[in-house]
Amino acid sequence: MALGTDGAKTFTRDTNYISDRITTDGADGWPVEPGRYRLVVARACPWANRAIIVRRLLGLERVLSMGVCGPTHDVNSWTFDLDPGGLDPVLQIPRIKDAYLKRFPDYPRGITVPAIVDVPSGGVVTNEFNQITLDLSTQWGEHHREGAPDLYPEALREEMDEVMHRVYTEVNNGVYRAGFAGDQTAYDAAYDRLFAALDWLSERLADRRYLMGESITEADVRLFTTLVRFDPVYHGHFKCNRSKLTEMPVLWAYARDLFQTPGFGDTVDFADIKSHYYEVHRDVNPTGIVPKGPDLSDWLTMHGREALGGKPFGDGTPPGPVAQDELVPPGHGVS
Amino acid sequence: MALGTDGAKTFTRDTNYISDRITTDGADGWPVEPGRYRLVVARACPWANRAIIVRRLLGLERVLSMGVCGPTHDVNSWTFDLDPGGLDPVLQIPRIKDAYLKRFPDYPRGITVPAIVDVPSGGVVTNEFNQITLDLSTQWGEHHREGAPDLYPEALREEMDEVMHRVYTEVNNGVYRAGFAGDQTAYDAAYDRLFAALDWLSERLADRRYLMGESITEADVRLFTTLVRFDPVYHGHFKCNRSKLTEMPVLWAYARDLFQTPGFGDTVDFADIKSHYYEVHRDVNPTGIVPKGPDLSDWLTMHGREALGGKPFGDGTPPGPVAQDELVPPGHGVS
Repeated sequence: MALGTDGAKTFTRDTNYISDRITTDGADGWPVEPGRYRLVVARACPWANRAIIVRRLLGLERVLSMGVCGPTHDVNSWTFDLDPGGLDPVLQIPRIKDAYLKRFPDYPRGITVPAIVDVPSGGVVTNEFNQITLDLSTQWGEHHREGAPDLYPEALREEMDEVMHRVYTEVNNGVYRAGFAGDQTAYDAAYDRLFAALDWLSERLADRRYLMGESITEADVRLFTTLVRFDPVYHGHFKCNRSKLTEMPVLWAYARDLFQTPGFGDTVDFADIKSHYYEVHRDVNPTGIVPKGPDLSDWLTMHGREALGGKPFGDGTPPGPVAQDELVPPGHGVS
Repeated sequence: MALGTDGAKTFTRDTNYISDRITTDGADGWPVEPGRYRLVVARACPWANRAIIVRRLLGLERVLSMGVCGPTHDVNSWTFDLDPGGLDPVLQIPRIKDAYLKRFPDYPRGITVPAIVDVPSGGVVTNEFNQITLDLSTQWGEHHREGAPDLYPEALREEMDEVMHRVYTEVNNGVYRAGFAGDQTAYDAAYDRLFAALDWLSERLADRRYLMGESITEADVRLFTTLVRFDPVYHGHFKCNRSKLTEMPVLWAYARDLFQTPGFGDTVDFADIKSHYYEVHRDVNPTGIVPKGPDLSDWLTMHGREALGGKPFGDGTPPGPVAQDELVPPGHGVS
């Protein structure tokens, strides 16, 4: 939280991350290597959800294992409370904080997911969520599945970076700016910025199937993870309530189109999402009571976006079914 | 707040009111008398909103004056902060609590609106909101305007009382039971009860224009005051979020039909409504920040309910325009 230029109490995200990169050439000391690293996520978290989706779209499950934290946490941040005995079965630690401390004993900043851990040493390599997914696309190419899509096409990068930047500042982070605003002035400004951006996106997506044109890219992944949380949490809990996603026809159809695409909806755990925001943010929701709504069954309805044409996976193919041990638990999805 | 039978922390409304009645025969010592009494309301409050609507539908403005409290209050409850100098111009008091204490110096219960004050003595006669509006219909008949509707028709009373009771326990009070639930169990039960009742009402109103058939009655007034607050406050603030009113087609059309009828929408102050709930209930909304949404412009759209027939005012007529000094302030309505 920091004071905005107008004196309002505007939420400001701490963007100091461990910015080492895992690369093909291993320039930072962390070469791409099958089986060496573990991606740690929480299904609740939108930033981690990006990495879950991209890993699955690219078919990296066989070379990059995944540890899953539960939806709630205490002052020590995310824990492996979903695992038997409360320990991650590979890292053998109860909380992701331990992997941060393994790397830097005095680690002073936020303990966040997604994080990629070096399994042999047990320390976090990186928690730079903006870079993690791009590197899965650009550095791990040798290990992509047959038919993996190109989520960060060279020819589109300049425009894509601009779009993703605007989606990040105005939408992905914009909902937090509204929800964590410290006073009415900061909130009002955040609300206006957010909905101005959603109007821009509605316009952009009115006649093109995906953000960058006819195929899915990383930009769609990033917008999707916010949209899918919009009605369950951001609309009420964060006061982003000009309208629900279901009342913004273009974005609602676009979000359902992605949701129904293998690799997107099958990573979404609505129960964890609601549990996280409503139970953890006691400063916003003192009772910790989790709303039963909204009705989610409409996520599986016809969206009509096929009429816009496009090839979701470009010259590639959709990913296969989710591995049995990575399924979203029964009752946590829409059905 | 009291423990429910299942041990859950269920919200229970204190229903001990000052139950004197103002009647034609003056049996309780308070005879109907033009100019003698003052109805004190807050536009924010759904229980007071009933009385504002009924007074206007019956054309009692000339004989029963109205004092209006602001939307927020402190431990001393509602105040006349909207009036010049912060004093009600007739009662010459800064807060309605003073009229309660004038009547009972040790008044131990909730200070609520609506309240009817005896102007000569300055004391509250009654704050029994369920009875106040019925008495305006049945006891003040001599002073009703030409063409006033019969809001409590003899022939319908038995069924009407049942319908109004169910609307009260399940809907009017049901939203509070959800919003003030002390734990998840109490909330979950409240949510289910509320939406079961809304489903029942959707069914009942699918093929009849008003709750009791072809004309507006007190039952419609009582349902309306909750529905009009549903999306602005109950949906988010009270976690009544299976769906918005705008997503329940029959109730949404029914509510717009009433809203567009003279005497209903022209009494609704959305700014006061939002300000009250979000600023006063700091235990639910610690920051006191008031959401900018929802977009309210759709309240004036076509509803199509005329196709069901009916005569809104029976053999009577709609009320005329709102008196200049009782208008909802500019910017507080939908336009």
